[in-house]
Amino acid sequence: MRGVGLGRHVIAELLDCDKSTLDDARLVEAALLEAARATKSKIISHYVYRFKPHGVSGYVLVAESHLSIHTWPEYGYAAVDVFTCGEHTDPWAGLEVLKERLKARRISVVSMERGVGVAETEKATATV
Amino acid sequence: MRGVGLGRHVIAELLDCDKSTLDDARLVEAALLEAARATKSKIISHYVYRFKPHGVSGYVLVAESHLSIHTWPEYGYAAVDVFTCGEHTDPWAGLEVLKERLKARRISVVSMERGVGVAETEKATATV
Repeated sequence: MRGVGLGRHVIAELLDCDKSTLDDARLVEAALLEAARATKSKIISHYVYRFKPHGVSGYVLVAESHLSIHTWPEYGYAAVDVFTCGEHTDPWAGLEVLKERLKARRISVVSMERGVGVAETEKATATV
Repeated sequence: MRGVGLGRHVIAELLDCDKSTLDDARLVEAALLEAARATKSKIISHYVYRFKPHGVSGYVLVAESHLSIHTWPEYGYAAVDVFTCGEHTDPWAGLEVLKERLKARRISVVSMERGVGVAETEKATATV
């Protein structure tokens, strides 16, 4: 996927998800790692934390940026970010995995290009 | 800071930063942790990784969501996210710290409310 910037950041609101899945740290962790692999990113590190009384937060640092999730099982809601760089990655494939695994019935997405024009500016400066 | 959603996500492009700072994992780590504290969030876990030949990625998982950074020292650019929930937190204070510590001369910011209407929907459903 060719973009105009260094990376693509998909910011998604996953709504009407399966509440018990959202509260299960093992399932969230598995979904997050599967999503990272689906983007074709290289996993460097990850961390998942379960809150009391409910909610799970997780993070996967990939060589190409990151994936993150924060769940509110009580609302059936998860805040998801899939941010990947490079022409070989596809953040949308990661989002698709999370949407399926968390059984989201509604979704709202904003996609942003990150680092737009940054490489070009540098080149322009270098040639002055 | 009162918002309309569960959290505020500040997405920032830090431009014309100090290149040696962007490539120093210890400085980036210190800036990220200081930024997390400035938001009044509770730090749960953090991880910082330095790439070869250059670049640093880091995140701080906080009880109120997360902060993340990915740097491209060669372009003087850092992609920063400060996402915090709850009325007691201020993501802008965290961004200010990162901007100062990385010596960003230009900055481009998008601020998003996350989880808008999620709690209200749940309440509405519950009262039906």
